[in-house]
Amino acid sequence: MYKAKVFVTLKPSILDPQGNAVKKGLLSLGFNNVEDVRVGKYLEVTLEAADKEQAFKDIDEMCKKLLANPVIEDYSFELE
Amino acid sequence: MYKAKVFVTLKPSILDPQGNAVKKGLLSLGFNNVEDVRVGKYLEVTLEAADKEQAFKDIDEMCKKLLANPVIEDYSFELE
Repeated sequence: MYKAKVFVTLKPSILDPQGNAVKKGLLSLGFNNVEDVRVGKYLEVTLEAADKEQAFKDIDEMCKKLLANPVIEDYSFELE
Repeated sequence: MYKAKVFVTLKPSILDPQGNAVKKGLLSLGFNNVEDVRVGKYLEVTLEAADKEQAFKDIDEMCKKLLANPVIEDYSFELE
């Protein structure tokens, strides 16, 4: 059994209104030292696989097909 | 300038309908080896701070006050 931690972020060139809203929230709470906030997704996927290589391939395919939108998002993951 | 990677996850005892929906999506795409999916948030916060210790304290406070809901969510972060 493998557990993958998947990080999905907007590409740097894509505007992030949710991140801007969080930044404004932090500023209004008095955190005046905040420069930038970007919001992404974090997924933990538990899966069965014959070996780590297979798990890696499966997770990569899941990211491409469903978990991330490759047009506007980047993804990365760690397997353990 | 410090950059914090913040991970916010639902506590294990909290139901995760979004994770279940993603799991069903993966199963319907043929990924029959998926056991479980949990969905959380991933935030990148860039901030000014005098030193790493101060940045750590600030981020921890941001998590407690805005970024995570401590009643139903856990958080962790890495500073770089």
